[in-house]
Amino acid sequence: MINVGIIGFGTVGTGTASILLNNRDILRERTGIDINLRRIADLDIKRDRGIKLPKGILTAKTEELLDDPDIHIVVELIGGTTVAKDVILKAISKGKHVVTANKALLATHGAEIFRAAGKQKVELGFEASVAGGIPIVKVIREGLVANRIRAVYGIINGTTNYILTKMTEEKAEFSEVLKEAQKLGYAEADPTYDIEGIDSAHKLAILASLSYGPRFSIKDVYREGISWISPMDIEFARELGYKLKLLAIAKESDGKVELRVHPTMVPEEYLISKVDGVYNAVYVEGDAVGSTLYYGRGAGDMPTGSAVVSDIADIARNIVTNSVGRISLDPSRKGKSLMKMDDVQSMYYFRFSAIDKPGVLSKISGILGKYNISIVSVIQKGRHEGKAVPLVVLTHRAKEKNVLAALKEINRLSIVAGKSVFIRVEGKEGDR
Amino acid sequence: MINVGIIGFGTVGTGTASILLNNRDILRERTGIDINLRRIADLDIKRDRGIKLPKGILTAKTEELLDDPDIHIVVELIGGTTVAKDVILKAISKGKHVVTANKALLATHGAEIFRAAGKQKVELGFEASVAGGIPIVKVIREGLVANRIRAVYGIINGTTNYILTKMTEEKAEFSEVLKEAQKLGYAEADPTYDIEGIDSAHKLAILASLSYGPRFSIKDVYREGISWISPMDIEFARELGYKLKLLAIAKESDGKVELRVHPTMVPEEYLISKVDGVYNAVYVEGDAVGSTLYYGRGAGDMPTGSAVVSDIADIARNIVTNSVGRISLDPSRKGKSLMKMDDVQSMYYFRFSAIDKPGVLSKISGILGKYNISIVSVIQKGRHEGKAVPLVVLTHRAKEKNVLAALKEINRLSIVAGKSVFIRVEGKEGDR
Repeated sequence: MINVGIIGFGTVGTGTASILLNNRDILRERTGIDINLRRIADLDIKRDRGIKLPKGILTAKTEELLDDPDIHIVVELIGGTTVAKDVILKAISKGKHVVTANKALLATHGAEIFRAAGKQKVELGFEASVAGGIPIVKVIREGLVANRIRAVYGIINGTTNYILTKMTEEKAEFSEVLKEAQKLGYAEADPTYDIEGIDSAHKLAILASLSYGPRFSIKDVYREGISWISPMDIEFARELGYKLKLLAIAKESDGKVELRVHPTMVPEEYLISKVDGVYNAVYVEGDAVGSTLYYGRGAGDMPTGSAVVSDIADIARNIVTNSVGRISLDPSRKGKSLMKMDDVQSMYYFRFSAIDKPGVLSKISGILGKYNISIVSVIQKGRHEGKAVPLVVLTHRAKEKNVLAALKEINRLSIVAGKSVFIRVEGKEGDR
Repeated sequence: MINVGIIGFGTVGTGTASILLNNRDILRERTGIDINLRRIADLDIKRDRGIKLPKGILTAKTEELLDDPDIHIVVELIGGTTVAKDVILKAISKGKHVVTANKALLATHGAEIFRAAGKQKVELGFEASVAGGIPIVKVIREGLVANRIRAVYGIINGTTNYILTKMTEEKAEFSEVLKEAQKLGYAEADPTYDIEGIDSAHKLAILASLSYGPRFSIKDVYREGISWISPMDIEFARELGYKLKLLAIAKESDGKVELRVHPTMVPEEYLISKVDGVYNAVYVEGDAVGSTLYYGRGAGDMPTGSAVVSDIADIARNIVTNSVGRISLDPSRKGKSLMKMDDVQSMYYFRFSAIDKPGVLSKISGILGKYNISIVSVIQKGRHEGKAVPLVVLTHRAKEKNVLAALKEINRLSIVAGKSVFIRVEGKEGDR
């Protein structure tokens, strides 16, 4: 029998407990191991979570759980980067295997925690830290182990995907949809973490570490949120054949790794464009396997619990067969170095607020040309002589550095009213 | 160092060899194990496969490979159910671990082979047997281990998906598109295996065994091919909001398992409807994780090779950590029993060739009503008094047995010209 202790009895803790209790039979059939939920620690042991627990397993004292010599696996579901870190390091130091769903912690202090686990020869499971129920960590580490990973594109934050989907479907403003999402419980009261792309960036750091090693951290990820997106840009994207998604991108180019989270225009016929609402998806391209995509719920008690319990089962198998460390936490990989955002190349969508008079396009395209940015197409909507109208430009691949410099120059033109908008565009050159 | 021998140097054999040779460094970095391609056996050792092999590794004698005491893992890529079976059983009897991509063999003689491997305590990897590069075997066995699987829906044959996609896009006849597919190498000269759903049924038997245990075989799978599909039905499906796909379905209902492969109408907004061309996808619904989908190339040298090599890496890890048998091949699962096709319930699309005169619909719907089949919608296209016109009926959930009986009665009506067409419809009741 393998004993499990859960610390943190919130949403995911409840889901995990209920799976361990309700699906114990099927876990035993499949693994041959009896996995027993022995303790749950949480500050609040009063609140009814709607599940029936065996008597006496709840405790308010984390130590009771950490000091229990019979507990093999500690599941950290507290969240945050302070208490959670202490708890994990303590559990490791006591020789316990750890499972966590804590992306913020791993993306911030991952190196330290992985090192500690490696030293103590304990397992550290983190399937639940990225994309909820989608077993993407296992897929990249094991299923696609034979591949050089060319690129990872993820819709890995349900809140922002829900908001962008609604903005697209209802041609609604960001602020309206955010309010609605908050009412429905899809967005937090303070939505910063999600809408500014921080959550996606945490998860991307983890995916990138798996794909490109060594350990990337949140600091390596370039990041833009979605709060500035206007329905007008979504509509122009549609006209041009694109959907707007908050993509987390890890990509190898010229031997370096690009890591970036930002609103991205994706060709509407790509499968990932069709991932709507709170769902997540991760597209992985490997040199052997080609294009693959993994889709499912990225959050929620039961989907995330499913991922937590898959880690528990894996670790239980390793304990029983005495093969702890079977998959190295930090293999001696050379690892790729990070590409500076300045050097990143992308296609771009620009929306200029340009005064409607002759010669404007020539001025703007002249500046773009000077910076080696070549144009694929131009849309000018509406006529309003002497007033500002939107002028939309789609470009071929260009260097970020050049784009920023060109926009700076364009924004200074008297014929351009206000700051120009730019959105990066994905898809193979020549796809359109 | 772990030594690998490949038997069968065809398409997948070549892909596997090239991954083992070209990505040896990355496999070593990730697994910490040096995986060495030691021998390749094939009857034809002359033909140029376009890859550079180390000297002396090719042999025409399978025995040379099987008798080599230094080979740990034998990869069977011969195909078919005769020689391949001998080779695998011989390899097992010599204590070698086996990796195979052979779905026909596993779906036919799986029980015998798994038993032999279990007895000899060797590993049997078969990731490549279903859905090519998509790591679906690992996903179901490990990633979703915590879930009771509710349903598996697969587009797991690229040839038929290519044909149906082309028929849909070009409103073309089956026979035309088949010819085109043969020219492009997407369909074999004798396409029976693919177009009659046999290949899908083999793979479904494997997926069902993983999901519902014990071991299901090809004999348990109800099967219909796509050669009788007409562009007219694809067009009616589109009008009704559906795409036509050859789905492989394993589903638990009332404690029994339905296993069936047949053309299926799927709501066009479902993600799996958007899987086009030669791509494969498997949708898996678990009680905890909810809806998930896995997408990628289902065939080809490199994608399938990617799956073969992931098995090799897994087994190498188990050999090195002395944890062979870590994942049981045939866990002591009670297993679900098979539901008879007669008892399967589904929604249905009917197309009657009905004489255009008053009272016809009333007669047909009367018979349907008698068999407890209730109608969702009716389309009658074109008017041609006294002549046969298509009459399309969409139903609520009904029992297969009743549907067959009702159709028999309807086909006997003098107002119905020729045999009626029926296609099963998936999607949640009330979705439309």
